[in-house]
Amino acid sequence: MLIVVAGMPGAGSSTVIQHALKLLRESGEGFASASSPASASASAGAVGFKHLNYGDVMFEIALQEGIVKSRDEIRKLPQTTQQEIQRKACDRIAALSKKENIILDTHCTVKTPFGYLPGLPAESLQKLSPRLFVLIEAFPHEIARRRSSDRTRERDVEDEKSIEEHQAMNRAISMAYACLTGAPVKIIENHDGALEKATTEFAELLTRISQNSV
Amino acid sequence: MLIVVAGMPGAGSSTVIQHALKLLRESGEGFASASSPASASASAGAVGFKHLNYGDVMFEIALQEGIVKSRDEIRKLPQTTQQEIQRKACDRIAALSKKENIILDTHCTVKTPFGYLPGLPAESLQKLSPRLFVLIEAFPHEIARRRSSDRTRERDVEDEKSIEEHQAMNRAISMAYACLTGAPVKIIENHDGALEKATTEFAELLTRISQNSV
Amino acid sequence: MLIVVAGMPGAGSSTVIQHALKLLRESGEGFASASSPASASASAGAVGFKHLNYGDVMFEIALQEGIVKSRDEIRKLPQTTQQEIQRKACDRIAALSKKENIILDTHCTVKTPFGYLPGLPAESLQKLSPRLFVLIEAFPHEIARRRSSDRTRERDVEDEKSIEEHQAMNRAISMAYACLTGAPVKIIENHDGALEKATTEFAELLTRISQNSV
Repeated sequence: MLIVVAGMPGAGSSTVIQHALKLLRESGEGFASASSPASASASAGAVGFKHLNYGDVMFEIALQEGIVKSRDEIRKLPQTTQQEIQRKACDRIAALSKKENIILDTHCTVKTPFGYLPGLPAESLQKLSPRLFVLIEAFPHEIARRRSSDRTRERDVEDEKSIEEHQAMNRAISMAYACLTGAPVKIIENHDGALEKATTEFAELLTRISQNSV
Repeated sequence: MLIVVAGMPGAGSSTVIQHALKLLRESGEGFASASSPASASASAGAVGFKHLNYGDVMFEIALQEGIVKSRDEIRKLPQTTQQEIQRKACDRIAALSKKENIILDTHCTVKTPFGYLPGLPAESLQKLSPRLFVLIEAFPHEIARRRSSDRTRERDVEDEKSIEEHQAMNRAISMAYACLTGAPVKIIENHDGALEKATTEFAELLTRISQNSV
Repeated sequence: MLIVVAGMPGAGSSTVIQHALKLLRESGEGFASASSPASASASAGAVGFKHLNYGDVMFEIALQEGIVKSRDEIRKLPQTTQQEIQRKACDRIAALSKKENIILDTHCTVKTPFGYLPGLPAESLQKLSPRLFVLIEAFPHEIARRRSSDRTRERDVEDEKSIEEHQAMNRAISMAYACLTGAPVKIIENHDGALEKATTEFAELLTRISQNSV
């Protein structure tokens, strides 16, 4: 099973995924045990997901092929080269998802000088067959502030208006993804000071989908 | 010919369809006769549509297969089971549309615990080949109030903000539906106290598309 | 290579295209020479684009087949006839794009009595394989005013609210186009008094994509 989790830079998708997986590991059999100890116990074994970052897999491939030296160079590559790397990463991820449950940490669209580049074009969706799309969102002003204080890698300065536009385009394309795959789109809000709420919501979603029931 | 009419719970899609079909039956040859009695007369015969509710067909199938006992249980079923029933309902509707004109009363997306589940995934669209998508909309506050006073079946309490979000996601996916099928998307507003306006607009649309002309 | 440029009537897409192509011709080798004279010189030869208007090609075909006499009659034709002409125009454009670089001046959706008709349904996208989608946008009040003072052809009076809705639907379907083709969507704002800014932005985009680099 492959689950797509998408958030724009600053939305905190990677953090939400990491915290949720930690929560599931720590709670072990106890998680979600309030309502049904038996099924929770059964599900605890099933809730095993590998966290894979699409950009990391792309960087891995670009590095192996000697195309780039640092991660930020990827989005400065020619459009066709980016798409070629994207395709190879997709094949690798699709192959992995045959063997284990994957949470694919990615972007609905990547903002490039050529505009909003779809992160999961139809061709990729067909290979990946995602079971669920999760959008991690926050208010534009939260994302803008998080980006400005994030020094872990270079980022373009974008004002709130452009973040709002980007997030709206992401929602729009997520519905095209849903239409093509038949998979639902879940929006999880990750507001300042409410990481735990977002984490719990995502962890419960993972438990539910592993149990394949509501 | 199959026409999709989609509205979220509380938008009043079923009511608009029922009233428009009643209007067309009652007006008979006279409907739209002001401008062109001859073509209106010709069209009156053609304006024969069967009103089919997607959820009803799904319930019919789930009931026949002993999966549920009441309609509300369907949306609480595992995602994959829901999709399986959805597929079977789609096949039944597609078969019916070969024999008569169908107005398919459905939802662009269904709000589930796993998020917005597409009502008409690519696979269904290919089978149904809709000629036209009609979105029945209302203001979020109207929908919220209609839902709270609607006692005919159980409904989740949703605030206006989430209704607004849902309606925006429905519009987005409707454009993916349009892209895949080539069929246009018509928005008809069904505001409080203006059911007659919505009804007339939809009835005229049915007449026009039957005449295959503007 | 085929690039789609889409704008609703009054957004000024044709004007932006014409001015950008004039700018590229006039600047010749000098364009974009500030940073890299050598590559700019190389690109100048490559930046050869033919401006093709989808509506013109449709009108050409409809005229040749004796279906219409004036351009405005096309959108009053039966939906199926419009779609048939659209298909033929698409084939002609796809054939041309095999021989030269095409800028296809068109609409994301056309507002018809049957609703928002997709300008580039999946079938057309497959034939055209666009490399890039460019949306030319303006504020609804700008578009409304431009339309009201545009006497070159008949136009429906639409208020700002409906322009805003139309523009949002265009954005939504553009993301479905992006999803199906893998091509990015670039939004260029063409505000009153800022045609030069829009023109320069589009000309630079054409230069970049010809160089296939950022």
